[in-house]
Amino acid sequence: MQFNEIVEKLKEGQSGLVDFEIKNNQNIISAASLEKAKENDISFLDNNSPLNLRDIIKDSKASALLLPSEDKNITEIIKNLTVNWILIKDPKIAFAETLEFLYPSEIEKEGIHETAVIGENVKIGPNVSIGANVYIGDHSEIGAETIIHAGVVVYRKVIIGSKNIIHANSVIHSDSKLGDECVINANAVIGGEGFGFVPTSKGWKKMPQVGKVILNNKVEIGSGSTIDRPSVGETILGEDTKIDNLVQIGHGVTTGKGCAMAAQVGIAGGAQIGNSVILAGQVGVGNKVIIGDRVIASSKTGIISNIDAGKVVSGFPAIPNKLWLRCSANFKKLPEIAKAIRELNRKNSR
Amino acid sequence: MQFNEIVEKLKEGQSGLVDFEIKNNQNIISAASLEKAKENDISFLDNNSPLNLRDIIKDSKASALLLPSEDKNITEIIKNLTVNWILIKDPKIAFAETLEFLYPSEIEKEGIHETAVIGENVKIGPNVSIGANVYIGDHSEIGAETIIHAGVVVYRKVIIGSKNIIHANSVIHSDSKLGDECVINANAVIGGEGFGFVPTSKGWKKMPQVGKVILNNKVEIGSGSTIDRPSVGETILGEDTKIDNLVQIGHGVTTGKGCAMAAQVGIAGGAQIGNSVILAGQVGVGNKVIIGDRVIASSKTGIISNIDAGKVVSGFPAIPNKLWLRCSANFKKLPEIAKAIRELNRKNSR
Amino acid sequence: MQFNEIVEKLKEGQSGLVDFEIKNNQNIISAASLEKAKENDISFLDNNSPLNLRDIIKDSKASALLLPSEDKNITEIIKNLTVNWILIKDPKIAFAETLEFLYPSEIEKEGIHETAVIGENVKIGPNVSIGANVYIGDHSEIGAETIIHAGVVVYRKVIIGSKNIIHANSVIHSDSKLGDECVINANAVIGGEGFGFVPTSKGWKKMPQVGKVILNNKVEIGSGSTIDRPSVGETILGEDTKIDNLVQIGHGVTTGKGCAMAAQVGIAGGAQIGNSVILAGQVGVGNKVIIGDRVIASSKTGIISNIDAGKVVSGFPAIPNKLWLRCSANFKKLPEIAKAIRELNRKNSR
Repeated sequence: MQFNEIVEKLKEGQSGLVDFEIKNNQNIISAASLEKAKENDISFLDNNSPLNLRDIIKDSKASALLLPSEDKNITEIIKNLTVNWILIKDPKIAFAETLEFLYPSEIEKEGIHETAVIGENVKIGPNVSIGANVYIGDHSEIGAETIIHAGVVVYRKVIIGSKNIIHANSVIHSDSKLGDECVINANAVIGGEGFGFVPTSKGWKKMPQVGKVILNNKVEIGSGSTIDRPSVGETILGEDTKIDNLVQIGHGVTTGKGCAMAAQVGIAGGAQIGNSVILAGQVGVGNKVIIGDRVIASSKTGIISNIDAGKVVSGFPAIPNKLWLRCSANFKKLPEIAKAIRELNRKNSR
Repeated sequence: MQFNEIVEKLKEGQSGLVDFEIKNNQNIISAASLEKAKENDISFLDNNSPLNLRDIIKDSKASALLLPSEDKNITEIIKNLTVNWILIKDPKIAFAETLEFLYPSEIEKEGIHETAVIGENVKIGPNVSIGANVYIGDHSEIGAETIIHAGVVVYRKVIIGSKNIIHANSVIHSDSKLGDECVINANAVIGGEGFGFVPTSKGWKKMPQVGKVILNNKVEIGSGSTIDRPSVGETILGEDTKIDNLVQIGHGVTTGKGCAMAAQVGIAGGAQIGNSVILAGQVGVGNKVIIGDRVIASSKTGIISNIDAGKVVSGFPAIPNKLWLRCSANFKKLPEIAKAIRELNRKNSR
Repeated sequence: MQFNEIVEKLKEGQSGLVDFEIKNNQNIISAASLEKAKENDISFLDNNSPLNLRDIIKDSKASALLLPSEDKNITEIIKNLTVNWILIKDPKIAFAETLEFLYPSEIEKEGIHETAVIGENVKIGPNVSIGANVYIGDHSEIGAETIIHAGVVVYRKVIIGSKNIIHANSVIHSDSKLGDECVINANAVIGGEGFGFVPTSKGWKKMPQVGKVILNNKVEIGSGSTIDRPSVGETILGEDTKIDNLVQIGHGVTTGKGCAMAAQVGIAGGAQIGNSVILAGQVGVGNKVIIGDRVIASSKTGIISNIDAGKVVSGFPAIPNKLWLRCSANFKKLPEIAKAIRELNRKNSR
């Protein structure tokens, strides 16, 4: 794609194109990071990129650069650039849009592969793609333009909306409900039974898990993640909530809209999570904990009591992030602290 | 099901029915939590429920309530209730039993789906259900009434007892042995090779993993969990041990009876775990650690040395839970502590 | 296999046989740990085994023992042994070699199972085994002697070298590239999309993930682990790097040669890891962190800033292991420390 075509397409996008210069209308074939870009590549500098990357752009071998319009250093630097550039309010969004038109998704074959097994009374919408060795249980529904890759197992009475992408070998249990434009990555498990056992004198009594999982529109679930259904009621992930790989969402958890949870997060049963909550990798959230809107927890945080909206927390048990940073800095000094106390005690006991 | 039928059925169960009152013999169609119950629902109050739920039952729209007979407040409250109630020693068990008869499990079709691939010399007991695209390796045995869902892969010489439920796309490696009434949830891996590599001057030398995994009766394994086989000998999970999702059990681990391990627990190779041990979410147990009977570890605990029977531990490295609570409370004060020492030093150096 | 045959085979191996004695040339049928070995078993004592095992060998019922030549106690003990023994520089390697010839791998049937679905323009090398219900996407290549077990899904344009073993129900996404002699364990996911979302006023904008995953020769990936592809460029695992179960490798991570990562490790996007790095269970590594060669991190360590080559680190945030041990010992004393300061303050305020 010629550089000027990219300019025209970005003008129609959401990234806020401010200015551009065509030094040489090259063919842009691929995209790369600033450090690795070579001729015919396009690359970008993010608004928040480290300062040292500003030097890299001077020497970049990329044929085109997406640069932040709000960075005054950049407006100086571009005067001396010999490559094509675009100044843009949000270069990261521009880069995402550029990837979309440089690398269009492969189109899956429509129709049902001859090895797929479709149960009784299954409703399948128009333009659906169902891959090899897929199994769809009785009374399930697959909405228009949904793509189900090879080896997926959908149990009974599952309702899947339109334009979903379900990757290979993932499993969706009975009664689960997916909205539109969801992505379920490979080997994820949606609607498995919650972990509920009641102690008795004869051992564990299993609590039947007859609830269901609901994923609202635009929810994405990472590879190998598990979203459990509850004993009664629903586990609900709010619209546009994004879940990374190997995340556990316990029975009866609810989240608001637009949350993001990084890999290996674990949310115990019944936790209630607000809108736009961000949990970094390996965070744990306890049973029935309530987390307010826009809370951010840094990696490995353990949240075992409620957190008010807007807080940034860290550590285990979770405390305010800034306090945790100071406490952690002092943790390293504990041997010195203990020694200082021994010496003070000695002096004071004289 | 009419309310009086539920009463009769619970009388035959294990929950200890003490008293009941039929205000109005309604049809009970479904079950729900106290907060969400509406007409024709049954709900329950647990022995350990928070006190504020006692107020909720006064206003509950449920048509029937299972209530704790040993709670004196409750015996007062029910005098004014207008709904059907049952007083019961263990309402949670009563609720589990009620779910069983209100929501009977769907019956899987008996027989072997025409797309399943069965190896040579496989023994299959009576009333077995084997789903679509299942693969069973040579010389394996599937006991009576076991259900194997779509996409499951069983390698060679696996012995599976009776009344097991193996969920979709899980994998059971060669020589594994399952007792009766086990549940393997979706995408779990039983009997994968242990992680054993010996350093040499030429790189890692792989230690062959020729042992096997044994799951005793009533063991349940969560979605995506992995139970490794050892180099020699066995990895053994004791009867009635319950494992949640995304748990790693290393090669050669043994557990006693009736343990429960929550999501994302990781047990390193050779650890020996007693009876009725409870490990909360994201707990880690080190190589060859020995954990006594009835030990409880709270979430995120890291156990790297042996723990005596009956202990409750927390933190990393694990210490007694009560001590950890006090230490954690003081961790938050570390900046103050450091400041206090600086001031004391200043005063003392005058 | 007769004991003298084992001696002859070990002489040809890499373990450094020093001496041996045939007390009674028994048939060695199986291998076991020292504690469990019985007649016709072979067992071993490692160079680093605990001292108490030295007593066990005196009473061992094994028919043959592999013992460390560099342990002077052992050279005394063997004078009184009545069983066959071999003195050897590295008994663990000798044991690994012995397992290889006592328990040869089962040979998979060559050829493509009739239920496998092979896409268009797929190249399949000689002596390949492709199991039941496998799916191979268009334009992929499978090298000589590679074994693909039942239920595996390979997307499009994947290049798999020779002598790989791909276990059941694992998934390999488009454009991934595997070298030779790799092992992908069951339900692992190679090349899933990285977790990349850009916040906008309309919610999350998905960053397309058009990069690829490259696994060099002899890489092994544990059951259920997930290796993500990046937005642009590559995620690369270096030759002979071994990954345990349920590990998350984020988009754009690179590792050197010969690393080992234990179960439930999580590496965030863009981290750069050197050669021979060892990460114990449940370790987390932050975004874009750089870790030098031969770094060792103990279990549950959280690495959020760069670590120089050769360091041994622990804790969260990671600090030198020896310092962490002293800090942890003092953490337990925090209540005492706080009390001491209160008392000192009281004395000093008089």
